[in-house]
Amino acid sequence: MMQPSLQAPSGMVGHAADRLCAAISRVASPTCVGLDPVLEKLPASLKPRDGADASVARAIESFSLQVLDAISGRVGIVKFQSACFERYGFEGVAALERLIRAAAERDLATILDAKRGDIGISASHYAATGSRMGADWMTINGWLGEDGISPFLKEGSGAFVLVRTSNASSQQMQCLQLEDGRTVAEGMADLVTELASDHCGACGYSTLGAVVGATHPAELAGFRERMPGVFMLLPGYGAQGGTAESLSPAFDANGLGAIVTASRSVIYAFKDRDGDWSAHVQSAASEFAEAIGTVSGLRS
Amino acid sequence: MMQPSLQAPSGMVGHAADRLCAAISRVASPTCVGLDPVLEKLPASLKPRDGADASVARAIESFSLQVLDAISGRVGIVKFQSACFERYGFEGVAALERLIRAAAERDLATILDAKRGDIGISASHYAATGSRMGADWMTINGWLGEDGISPFLKEGSGAFVLVRTSNASSQQMQCLQLEDGRTVAEGMADLVTELASDHCGACGYSTLGAVVGATHPAELAGFRERMPGVFMLLPGYGAQGGTAESLSPAFDANGLGAIVTASRSVIYAFKDRDGDWSAHVQSAASEFAEAIGTVSGLRS
Repeated sequence: MMQPSLQAPSGMVGHAADRLCAAISRVASPTCVGLDPVLEKLPASLKPRDGADASVARAIESFSLQVLDAISGRVGIVKFQSACFERYGFEGVAALERLIRAAAERDLATILDAKRGDIGISASHYAATGSRMGADWMTINGWLGEDGISPFLKEGSGAFVLVRTSNASSQQMQCLQLEDGRTVAEGMADLVTELASDHCGACGYSTLGAVVGATHPAELAGFRERMPGVFMLLPGYGAQGGTAESLSPAFDANGLGAIVTASRSVIYAFKDRDGDWSAHVQSAASEFAEAIGTVSGLRS
Repeated sequence: MMQPSLQAPSGMVGHAADRLCAAISRVASPTCVGLDPVLEKLPASLKPRDGADASVARAIESFSLQVLDAISGRVGIVKFQSACFERYGFEGVAALERLIRAAAERDLATILDAKRGDIGISASHYAATGSRMGADWMTINGWLGEDGISPFLKEGSGAFVLVRTSNASSQQMQCLQLEDGRTVAEGMADLVTELASDHCGACGYSTLGAVVGATHPAELAGFRERMPGVFMLLPGYGAQGGTAESLSPAFDANGLGAIVTASRSVIYAFKDRDGDWSAHVQSAASEFAEAIGTVSGLRS
């Protein structure tokens, strides 16, 4: 039986890493805005009248849509935090699907931050879920090894494996020392690099990437060298700390190979400020793109 | 603003591990059936006429509902593979929500096999998603450390952390040797045990559990000893190999502390057999419960 929904949307052509590079070039900045919308932080004008799932999902969708308009043309990539939508059940998932389409219509490359990690048919299902939603990339968890990563290795879409995450307790597992001198995170980085190597696009980067927290600037040069051909997604810029200058070792000589993500510092830039909320989001996106564009060398 | 959907359904009272023990006692067997429904494997009579998401989701829901009827009273616990439902978008998620309610109505304890792994508000969202669906337990990924585990540590519902998974490539990360002599999986087991200790119910077990593959019988005694008070969920019995006898070291002296999961060998027991398909599922569930009930010591 044909499963038409397994096919990627028609707009999703070419290699996922090449599309990512094109999205970066369009705005001359390797920047991504994280959309992690939370009910409590919405602008007052958008808050729903009741707490029913459908009402909240609608409010979050409306907010997200206006954020997409505000950041489009300023940054090239948007990352959707799946949990913030799943939280509201099927109404939230339906909103997420519409928003990913809306982002693509605004020429934004899309990352579904779902941190999925499963094997076999389940992993294939998750990969298919991302593709049917039209997400260019997805974040995944490599704890299960190759079985949990390979199903995401497709030409049309890409996956970022969690290698060294930005949160405080990430060291509990990721910084344990192996007997061969590597950390556990470096072990994960090596596995990712090995699996990534056969899947590079014209830009030299693979459809398999890695998440490395912007909160660990001292480790960036090491991971950049350790993972040639692997695009790094750097969360934790802005609200979670991390300065623009400290991130320069993450980029290659062409200003590519890494994407910096900011979430709260952009999408909630209106907090405690007067006037049109979306104008504050626009300004924050522009400032973010300028800072990272300069550090990467794509803007002078 | 009140968020009524954050509250657990009224049926979900008491400590999650105590409810699990009660579900095991009701059938005198620590067994769980994994519901991983896949379109291609449905009984011919249930296959949809077209491949549209709504049609497939309906067919999978109908199949799953009949499986719940077939296993109810024979095993005490059912595990839903979230990927198999998410695959069909919001239609699939809505079906999953209805099925979890249907399982509870049939006195089955429920595990949402979602393998979620995120931090902070996102982890809280995933925990809330499981609770609002009414799932007693959820599977989670501990790669992010305590930040990714603590949000799931609630009295009302529980979480199984992936410690040593059943798949072939699990050794790539989980069996790396640490400099202190432990494996990486043992490092995860120790983190889980530490976090679990303050959350034990009357039965002596915590709301934090661990996934340890039934495919690694030689390691079961070690993990049982290493993780006192931690319920182990053992997938990989049946279709993925592993015999009943080899699993006995996983149980405590009272036949508790571990749950064995079988998926394909039960829910597709009708394959290549004539007659009423659900009768074959009933028989397979009974045989599975008898074999594990005996090994655990709950049946003589």
